[in-house]
Amino acid sequence: MSSIFSKIVQGEIPCHKVAESDRYFAFLDIRPNAKGHTLVIPKEEIDYLFDLEDSLLAGMIIFAKHVAKALEATIDCKRVGMLVVGTEVPHAHIHLIPFQHERQMDISGKKLDFTKEELAAIAEAIRSNFK
Amino acid sequence: MSSIFSKIVQGEIPCHKVAESDRYFAFLDIRPNAKGHTLVIPKEEIDYLFDLEDSLLAGMIIFAKHVAKALEATIDCKRVGMLVVGTEVPHAHIHLIPFQHERQMDISGKKLDFTKEELAAIAEAIRSNFK
Repeated sequence: MSSIFSKIVQGEIPCHKVAESDRYFAFLDIRPNAKGHTLVIPKEEIDYLFDLEDSLLAGMIIFAKHVAKALEATIDCKRVGMLVVGTEVPHAHIHLIPFQHERQMDISGKKLDFTKEELAAIAEAIRSNFK
Repeated sequence: MSSIFSKIVQGEIPCHKVAESDRYFAFLDIRPNAKGHTLVIPKEEIDYLFDLEDSLLAGMIIFAKHVAKALEATIDCKRVGMLVVGTEVPHAHIHLIPFQHERQMDISGKKLDFTKEELAAIAEAIRSNFK
């Protein structure tokens, strides 16, 4: 059975896409710790990040770096933090969080509320800065 | 001026080393969120992880994966999580945290106390599993 993230990649579940390449996909977390909080995933459905073979894992961090640079160019933040917990969805994912305060890196911390329209506008702005 | 992490790499400040390669270094966090909580750094002193050039960043995540596998082989944990905040020390570092509970991934959460002797024994066990 496909993970919820595979269904997002395949377009079966809508998302606010931030970036895409042949092997990776990035979209906004709909329960964000900070404005611009993004999830980066491999398109291939592999549960655990450290089970990705070396070239797929290396490519993923480079892709995440490009997404982080687009986040920095779009969102007013101290810097972009990175978090991998991975037990909620069995499909490897990196949280990229453009934080103003270190406490926003706590995955169980306070979530922000944005409307669909606000999330769409944030995603579009990040996409325009993705290189 | 050298960062505290550069001084650790150079042996000017003692640490509980877990792994080392030509470009990277890993050692135990002395204020751990979980047993085996490890910091992975590039030997080159670069403040912000996403400022590492692509090949150095890619090599770092592969090195971190090998350290994570050694942690899994040594520590009883659900899996190894990854966290980058980076504002405490101006030298890029990845926290690898072998967690039992997701709340252990919160960097501002409860720290564990180990004696120097206990940390030395933990580091030695991880080193023996590093490939």
